[in-house]
Amino acid sequence: MRVALAQINPTVGDIDANAELVSEAISRARGAGADLVVLPELALTGYPPQDLLLKEHFVRDNLDALARVAASCTGTAVVGFVDVGADGRLYNAAAVCREGRVTDVYHKQHLPNYGVFDESRYFSPGSSTLVIDVGGTQVAVTICEDIWVPGPILAAAAAGADVVVNLSASPFHAGKGAAREEMLQGRAREASVWLGYVNLAGGQDEILFDGRSLVVSPCGEVLARAVGFEADLLVFDTHGDARPMEPLTDGQEEVYSALVCGVRDYVRKNGFTDVVIGLSGGIDSALAACVAVDALGSEHVHGVMMPGRYSSPGSVDDARSLAEALSIDVRSLSIEEGFSAYLTTLEDTFAGCDVGLAEENLQARVRGTLLMALSNTFGWLVLATGNKSELSVGYSTLYGDMVGGFSPLKDVLKTRVYELARWRNSIGESPVIPEASIAKPPSAELRPDQTDQDSLPPYDVLDAVLERYVELDQSRGEIVAAGFDAAIVERIIAMTDAAEHKRRQGALGTKITPKAFGRDRRMPVTNRYRG
Amino acid sequence: MRVALAQINPTVGDIDANAELVSEAISRARGAGADLVVLPELALTGYPPQDLLLKEHFVRDNLDALARVAASCTGTAVVGFVDVGADGRLYNAAAVCREGRVTDVYHKQHLPNYGVFDESRYFSPGSSTLVIDVGGTQVAVTICEDIWVPGPILAAAAAGADVVVNLSASPFHAGKGAAREEMLQGRAREASVWLGYVNLAGGQDEILFDGRSLVVSPCGEVLARAVGFEADLLVFDTHGDARPMEPLTDGQEEVYSALVCGVRDYVRKNGFTDVVIGLSGGIDSALAACVAVDALGSEHVHGVMMPGRYSSPGSVDDARSLAEALSIDVRSLSIEEGFSAYLTTLEDTFAGCDVGLAEENLQARVRGTLLMALSNTFGWLVLATGNKSELSVGYSTLYGDMVGGFSPLKDVLKTRVYELARWRNSIGESPVIPEASIAKPPSAELRPDQTDQDSLPPYDVLDAVLERYVELDQSRGEIVAAGFDAAIVERIIAMTDAAEHKRRQGALGTKITPKAFGRDRRMPVTNRYRG
Repeated sequence: MRVALAQINPTVGDIDANAELVSEAISRARGAGADLVVLPELALTGYPPQDLLLKEHFVRDNLDALARVAASCTGTAVVGFVDVGADGRLYNAAAVCREGRVTDVYHKQHLPNYGVFDESRYFSPGSSTLVIDVGGTQVAVTICEDIWVPGPILAAAAAGADVVVNLSASPFHAGKGAAREEMLQGRAREASVWLGYVNLAGGQDEILFDGRSLVVSPCGEVLARAVGFEADLLVFDTHGDARPMEPLTDGQEEVYSALVCGVRDYVRKNGFTDVVIGLSGGIDSALAACVAVDALGSEHVHGVMMPGRYSSPGSVDDARSLAEALSIDVRSLSIEEGFSAYLTTLEDTFAGCDVGLAEENLQARVRGTLLMALSNTFGWLVLATGNKSELSVGYSTLYGDMVGGFSPLKDVLKTRVYELARWRNSIGESPVIPEASIAKPPSAELRPDQTDQDSLPPYDVLDAVLERYVELDQSRGEIVAAGFDAAIVERIIAMTDAAEHKRRQGALGTKITPKAFGRDRRMPVTNRYRG
Repeated sequence: MRVALAQINPTVGDIDANAELVSEAISRARGAGADLVVLPELALTGYPPQDLLLKEHFVRDNLDALARVAASCTGTAVVGFVDVGADGRLYNAAAVCREGRVTDVYHKQHLPNYGVFDESRYFSPGSSTLVIDVGGTQVAVTICEDIWVPGPILAAAAAGADVVVNLSASPFHAGKGAAREEMLQGRAREASVWLGYVNLAGGQDEILFDGRSLVVSPCGEVLARAVGFEADLLVFDTHGDARPMEPLTDGQEEVYSALVCGVRDYVRKNGFTDVVIGLSGGIDSALAACVAVDALGSEHVHGVMMPGRYSSPGSVDDARSLAEALSIDVRSLSIEEGFSAYLTTLEDTFAGCDVGLAEENLQARVRGTLLMALSNTFGWLVLATGNKSELSVGYSTLYGDMVGGFSPLKDVLKTRVYELARWRNSIGESPVIPEASIAKPPSAELRPDQTDQDSLPPYDVLDAVLERYVELDQSRGEIVAAGFDAAIVERIIAMTDAAEHKRRQGALGTKITPKAFGRDRRMPVTNRYRG
């Protein structure tokens, strides 16, 4: 049998356009001789549609779109959509479209309601296995989480399936590609069936789908793989010869590709073409600019240097070199006029007060305000350049350097920022990020001779503790027992807890770790737990 | 039997302090001769603990606290806590503490996972009725959602219960008090049992618990009611005489009390004492200042007037009169220096551009930055003063007037702002909000002769459409069919959808409607649905 896995990149809510993508993919697959074409989970609505699902007319529109897709469908296609039961309950569903109509519907049985997922908020679980006949081959349909547990694929095999297809929308984190393949290989082997796994591609707010759809043989061998992070159509004959396939990227390349995809899709799907980035001469803004250029092209990325009285001359030079290496336009707007004006306005009010923190934040806020003025006037989306280490401990200024519509490095710890910067410098003809930006001690340059390490533990220690506290939910006792200094652990945890209110007002950014700030980690702001 | 309903106001995560509150309430109730004392849902952790529940040590700390509470307990007490099953599953649970130990545990059977609730993310449902004997009276235990469905109370009655107690954490919205009482009266009557309903009191981030715990007789009569929005201990004899009880507030008074409680608890539970508010002379900031003063006392509320070139003289006078009437300190900080500085810095960049929007936003952002400078220096929490109408359609400046740690009017439509202002003026010896602030056409005063109605439909139309679109999830077709102008509906919906990215970066504020922005309405930012 010839199977086509149609790895599309739909946009949440854009039902008509998504239906077009689906129909086009079906036509292309049929053109390539496919007997069966499989689309991802909720292909018609995009994933996750969140509370759009509570609008009855939204669900109705998705059913109308399914009817249109089915009407134009030749051959057999399996399409993810939202089904409505007779009692009004919603199901995360797959429609089998054959020769102009919907002949069967499968309801997802295992609804994830952890991490970034809220499926129990919307859907009821299905309880039946669906096996269809495609030219004599028995094909079972499953949806996403159904394949992460052993039951459904074994039930499908017991019901006589030769092939199991899985419609997915599987959120990315670093290393997930390899882990998922290993899991899928085990499932196919256990059930001794062909497995056709089709994943969404592309970004949706803070979540990213990494594509890399797969065909796994009944012996658990990966025989075909679609590209990562982009739409693709993977056509495969279950009894054909093995062919060369897309490599499975990992390490820095995998994460960097994810960041690029996250920026590109957020910008484009929200109707922007261009972004603006404050270039400080530091490594965060340098890496963010590289990601933006690789996502959008240099003509769509605009750099702004905003020197102040504490900026080092080296920083301005580094920012300019970066802009040159990336071929992006760059302008310089001094923050001195704005900063001085605030100091004058506040002179009487602040007489005799300790205004160190206020003065540091004022400088950051002048920068944020200038970026927003450019955004308002030229229609550029502001990219915030903070990293996950800063955001964790609140080493950032709300309404200042946190200003932005999207935050590409939001889930990237500082130590990984360095790794990614070195990796990005290694892949081109010559490095784009100035060596000085990588080598110099990191500094916010908001007071004389400031460095991050005046206020924070060394980044390798900070990041190791943050991984344990934020991503693994370890207690301070466990972290100290792992060999970290108790006072440092105490301080990092206290800072992280105290910064929750800042994170709530921060921009969205691409999730690349198992636990990102955002819908993945739902902590109360009002929270006196110190455990 | 003498029952005490201990309506406490715990803080999320403050397990030790919450356990103290519980033990104190038990002692006081015993002192008042109660045979049985009932605490609210998750009294030991506070509600909702959100992802703190994913920390094993957090759950363990709550179990340790329960053991301490039980050890010191004389008589019988029922206490809400988080239980752990043998397989590690978590349960939203109630412990029966008797004479020094936990004798029985009930697991909540109906887990809400809609609206503001995420209980399926954390908890497994229980499946058993629990009836205990208290001095010969059969008492069944239920938790919150269990009483909103007919099953559990009928099962309890069938199991021989004379009294059913319900431990709740029931989020407030306007009118909920009356609706809940009617529901509880029906339940008691249907099951023909005494119903002792004990609700949390106090605010937690965007959610508020309105207390008003109740005793309902088997005939469905409300015989006792605790106060609203504050801690209380309601002691009641099932066969005693009826006594005078707290009135059930409704209308403007109910909502106003909620807003006051929301501000007080957010400020105090987050370790602040004082707030600062920008006073524009308009009605929103005036009402917000009233709420803050009623919540915290005038000595803890600081007003700032920030006139600019487009501020009317009347506005400054109105702001000053309000500050005087509320006995709060007020200072004036001009935005002219800051605004002019930005215009100078951006002069070359903006040459020949249409910078109307940028200039309006710059003024709002200078104000936001000044408020934050005061916050940084004096430790005052900034209250944002925007209303739900503005926030819906994005008629507000991100990092400008949206700046703030808390937003008291976030869920209050503009038409309700007027009603609340008039109500607040009616209750004192003399009006505190200047009549001019109420009577003049609302304006952001960011350009000459601007009024809100240059950009927005009249507020009565806007709010009526927003109620249908935001709170009831109606489609444009339904709204137009209800008699609204199609072009206006189209525009309001488009503006509301386009403002989602701003709302994501806005401050928390108290939910007072059935659907507030925030965890109640989880819309994607990237969203092309136009249905």
